[in-house]
Amino acid sequence: MRVKCIVSYDGTQFSGYQVQPNKRTVQSEIENSLLKLHKGQAVKIYASGRTDAQVHALGQVFHFDTHLTIPKEKWPYALNSLLPDDISIKEAVYVDDDFHSRFHALKKEYRYQINTAKIQDVFKRHYMYHFPYHLDVDLMRKASQYLCGTHDFTSFCVAKTEVEDKVRTIFSIDIVKKDSDIIFSFIGNGFLYNMVRILVGTLLEVGQGIRTPESIPAVIKGRDRGLSGKTVPGHGLYLWKVYYDN
Amino acid sequence: MRVKCIVSYDGTQFSGYQVQPNKRTVQSEIENSLLKLHKGQAVKIYASGRTDAQVHALGQVFHFDTHLTIPKEKWPYALNSLLPDDISIKEAVYVDDDFHSRFHALKKEYRYQINTAKIQDVFKRHYMYHFPYHLDVDLMRKASQYLCGTHDFTSFCVAKTEVEDKVRTIFSIDIVKKDSDIIFSFIGNGFLYNMVRILVGTLLEVGQGIRTPESIPAVIKGRDRGLSGKTVPGHGLYLWKVYYDN
Repeated sequence: MRVKCIVSYDGTQFSGYQVQPNKRTVQSEIENSLLKLHKGQAVKIYASGRTDAQVHALGQVFHFDTHLTIPKEKWPYALNSLLPDDISIKEAVYVDDDFHSRFHALKKEYRYQINTAKIQDVFKRHYMYHFPYHLDVDLMRKASQYLCGTHDFTSFCVAKTEVEDKVRTIFSIDIVKKDSDIIFSFIGNGFLYNMVRILVGTLLEVGQGIRTPESIPAVIKGRDRGLSGKTVPGHGLYLWKVYYDN
Repeated sequence: MRVKCIVSYDGTQFSGYQVQPNKRTVQSEIENSLLKLHKGQAVKIYASGRTDAQVHALGQVFHFDTHLTIPKEKWPYALNSLLPDDISIKEAVYVDDDFHSRFHALKKEYRYQINTAKIQDVFKRHYMYHFPYHLDVDLMRKASQYLCGTHDFTSFCVAKTEVEDKVRTIFSIDIVKKDSDIIFSFIGNGFLYNMVRILVGTLLEVGQGIRTPESIPAVIKGRDRGLSGKTVPGHGLYLWKVYYDN
């Protein structure tokens, strides 16, 4: 039977999602728990995609195959009792054997959280990027309109990325300000390596008046990482939701 | 010159406020920063009161004396640049030489945060007590009315407390529910050792129907720690604000 899980994790203490030798990763913690539950039999999990060190997830999705016949509503409790307290399985359902968390993902939503207060809030230090500068939200919204749509996002991904096709579609970018917090939400059909963090870094420069909204099309057209803004830190980023058909 | 500071800290990684040998404490971190700022001269700080291990603060207050003539608005930056990132000085003002953070405190506000969701939210695990049970908020509000006022709170403090006078006044107890979170706010003229955590533990038993609101007066009158509820964990507790006459 194939099980699809929605998992939340606090990325602070992880070297990212994917297994790496001698590093604490989300994947290795979950696979260790499944190993125990399956009495020593290794179970590999497949996620919708990787997340980097310090990056959080509210709705990461993974699947695995099992011979255990646990009712779907019991899976979260069975796994959470074996998982460390910075990973939590929120939901599990049985799916068809051909379901794939990565290949069947239609849309992904990422959020990036910034706090602009002059003095850092200790309770946000691992969960929001502290950026204590004035930002013009309207200018950032205007710039984000140029980023939406189908484009070659070469300028917005790590230069050494191996992926050949850098064309992606961003369906929407929402920017919400509440008090001194600014939350960016991106929904797209997929995102390149570091793409959300470079998009935010570029939008912050627009918000500060360092570049104009109207300069964005040339950055996209240039297909050169050197044309876009800085990569903002991982700890403000959340894999918020992965959308599937149904 | 005497300086009064408002400080916020994330209690997760501290063995409490007060200096203890070989332990990481809030007081020792702040005194170490002041030592550096005063080029090796020890500066002792005096807080409004202690907080326990894992207990947080939004508005703890302390004072100290200094010969440095730093403008008041620069003090937070000077200290925060030397402090670890789980302590943040939010405000500093110069006060009269007879001001005392502890003796002049008129009222204190503590908050206790609970999350009642069935599955623990990883982002709340250090900041709210996970209590996944149904709670009747109206019953807890009714019980809290019996706790407000001036009483001998012997039943609500650690049995071995050395303080002679256990009479305190609680001005208000507010209980707010938002989604699966419940926030208790206590304002009083002072609180005994573990008092807020025992008050909350007792209110939770009322909310679960284990004891009635009407049973509270007898618990107070009994002056016996054995009559009240459990002590809830420190990580849900916040020293929210200290009130002074000014």
